[in-house]
Amino acid sequence: MREFDLIDRLTRDLPTHPDLMIGPGDDCAVLTTGDGSRALLFKADAVVEGVHFTSDIAPERIGHKALARALSDIAAMGGTPSAALVTLALPATYDPDRIIRIYDGMSALARRYRVAIAGGETTLNPGGILISIALLGYADASRLPLRSKARSGQAIFVSGELGGSLEAKHLDFEPRITHGQWLARQPSVGAMIDLSDGLGGDLKHILQASHVGAELLASAIPISQAARQRSQLPGGRTPLLAALADGEDFELLFTADRQQAVSLLDAWKTTFPDLRLSCIGKITSEPGLRLRDERGVHLLPNHGYVHFA
Amino acid sequence: MREFDLIDRLTRDLPTHPDLMIGPGDDCAVLTTGDGSRALLFKADAVVEGVHFTSDIAPERIGHKALARALSDIAAMGGTPSAALVTLALPATYDPDRIIRIYDGMSALARRYRVAIAGGETTLNPGGILISIALLGYADASRLPLRSKARSGQAIFVSGELGGSLEAKHLDFEPRITHGQWLARQPSVGAMIDLSDGLGGDLKHILQASHVGAELLASAIPISQAARQRSQLPGGRTPLLAALADGEDFELLFTADRQQAVSLLDAWKTTFPDLRLSCIGKITSEPGLRLRDERGVHLLPNHGYVHFA
Repeated sequence: MREFDLIDRLTRDLPTHPDLMIGPGDDCAVLTTGDGSRALLFKADAVVEGVHFTSDIAPERIGHKALARALSDIAAMGGTPSAALVTLALPATYDPDRIIRIYDGMSALARRYRVAIAGGETTLNPGGILISIALLGYADASRLPLRSKARSGQAIFVSGELGGSLEAKHLDFEPRITHGQWLARQPSVGAMIDLSDGLGGDLKHILQASHVGAELLASAIPISQAARQRSQLPGGRTPLLAALADGEDFELLFTADRQQAVSLLDAWKTTFPDLRLSCIGKITSEPGLRLRDERGVHLLPNHGYVHFA
Repeated sequence: MREFDLIDRLTRDLPTHPDLMIGPGDDCAVLTTGDGSRALLFKADAVVEGVHFTSDIAPERIGHKALARALSDIAAMGGTPSAALVTLALPATYDPDRIIRIYDGMSALARRYRVAIAGGETTLNPGGILISIALLGYADASRLPLRSKARSGQAIFVSGELGGSLEAKHLDFEPRITHGQWLARQPSVGAMIDLSDGLGGDLKHILQASHVGAELLASAIPISQAARQRSQLPGGRTPLLAALADGEDFELLFTADRQQAVSLLDAWKTTFPDLRLSCIGKITSEPGLRLRDERGVHLLPNHGYVHFA
């Protein structure tokens, strides 16, 4: 049973609540608040020693990554984060100074986005350090860029450059909070997701939720310098495959009306001159994820990073 | 550095947010909502294989305990839980059926208290299963039984019977949600906490937050059958020490005006005939935790269950 199959089984027929607007299957859970126009975003995410970071990494970067991953999910809902709880699971012997520095990295990022660290717990974890973050945020309830909002004929966009994150930015990436908020305010934007499992895998989440397909244009996919460099190494993935399948890019992938594509790109360039935005394909009514390259159009097999293969 | 010292260092000077009413140091974090009379409760808690449960335990009981612990903190705020996120950290090889049964145990409890399981994540944890729960709830903002609300002259009460939880109920306890809600509505109630670290340790949290002391009456402390039985075993703690120092009782400890003590006990007995409520001592202006027994009054050393000793 692969991770996604197990999750599918686990999320079937779960208990619900009248306040729950959006349950499992989007970047965050969404709940109603007393204020009808304001939706409450709720997210949990964990990083684990030996899986998401190695023991030799500077503790501040570990703390940064732990919080940044959850912030990236708030960004994908166009939200504003407000408060985080930190569960720190530690081996029986540990260096308190290392823990303090993990918190320092987390706090620096939290301050930058005005997120309270509202508390937390420490517990024992014999296998190594695990940091679980629970995060709250708010968004405009009428403008949530849900995964289910992709429509045939929309164009597909992605921020930044993809692939090779594990060689480069996965510990230091900046969550796209400001960009996500701006995108959620654009009337032309449909569905949005942050890239954690890889372009191919995450786009499939949108396609499934919206019951549509997509065609990507290979030459339009922005490939990172790190992915290009790694492809030179023995056994390295091709740059395109890295951009499609590498995890942890933490860029924003979204759809928007094709008629507005040029004006959206222009407005982005004015607002965010330092971050590339690429139009990489289109949503189709025919299901499946296709790639168009110089050899034609072919259906892509399942890509995406799966923890339990 | 002991766990509490590290937590003290980590929670110093943390980033905050205008919505945050109560940060680290109470049973839950508390945030404002759009509705001024309604406070949002926010809690995270984790259970770990080999620490909070052993590998031979029925998976449903593990799931129950994971959620029940967090619900117990909502109970201590007099709150109503609404939605939980589940982070499941699993070893590289695991039995999917065991995971499904963990979720079944969690879901059964969630349904009983009308809590949505709003999503979650799975991740790898080489050392064993770790389940982290993030939980939301609501409470009346004007009636929060905060740890800081104990006053000299108040009486101290505890629900149920204490000690020996690890031999008996720690996997199957029922969170005191209904009781906590009822208590928060009683105008005579001051501070409240749920017992996770042991009566001695958790009472000290109230004393510190309220800048007061306490005197407990040894003969009034309700001792569980499990604690009495275990005391017969070689090396067993005395029943009184077990009731004072054993962790994971998950009963409610609270203070209330002394003039209302008898009427509160009467009202409790009518409302909750199946759960014992005991008046076990009083809050004093003199700091420190004292125990009165047949030999006199003595200051109690630091008790309570500390994970990292």
